[in-house]
Amino acid sequence: MTALAEALDSLKYNADGLIPAIAQQYDSNEVLMMAWMNRASIEETLQTGRVCYWSRSRNKFWRKGESSGQVQALKEFRYDCDADTILLLVDQLGPACHTGRRSCFYNKVKGDQVIIDREVLIDPKTLYA
Amino acid sequence: MTALAEALDSLKYNADGLIPAIAQQYDSNEVLMMAWMNRASIEETLQTGRVCYWSRSRNKFWRKGESSGQVQALKEFRYDCDADTILLLVDQLGPACHTGRRSCFYNKVKGDQVIIDREVLIDPKTLYA
Repeated sequence: MTALAEALDSLKYNADGLIPAIAQQYDSNEVLMMAWMNRASIEETLQTGRVCYWSRSRNKFWRKGESSGQVQALKEFRYDCDADTILLLVDQLGPACHTGRRSCFYNKVKGDQVIIDREVLIDPKTLYA
Repeated sequence: MTALAEALDSLKYNADGLIPAIAQQYDSNEVLMMAWMNRASIEETLQTGRVCYWSRSRNKFWRKGESSGQVQALKEFRYDCDADTILLLVDQLGPACHTGRRSCFYNKVKGDQVIIDREVLIDPKTLYA
């Protein structure tokens, strides 16, 4: 068994066999999204170089961009000190968010309000047409 | 009720009342760590401007830096499209990681190996002395 296989075994998956993964644009360092992976989606991601999550709502592999075309190419695969969170450095084509925004983190607290300060790059109707 | 209070109510806490929070250094955009918050720790964070998580292992508030001195000042509070992940833009004093490294994400996959490519800034023995 390789050191990598041992490391992937030692990741702390939750009761559903999942581990959170943060996707960050590798050059701008913008945090794009957070989603979940299982052991199989991690292996596929490392093998193909294209990010594959596990969709908790659809209960199946979620190959990022398979319906929208907005794929994530893997640049670096990292995990943290407790081995319970993954950080994916990616090259995101177009919007990462299903709303058509570059990043999913477009809601910002401002005083007693919440504002949206990220623009829609592609209309979701176009994105999933 | 303010728009903010409504928004905090509408966040998707898990069965334990927790929601994952990514901490990112506000100027360099480095991702420092991922931890968990509950509604009360979110409110404290927004009120005090110092980041307070919920420690799942100790089952109590985790005021970042209370034992190490390495506090996180809150710069921006964001959450994502699904309202199930928080992104904290912070100003991290010194190392964010309990190993004394700036970021917790120091394990990097390189071929079939895992390497550590972040240096220890402060010896943990000093950090928690």
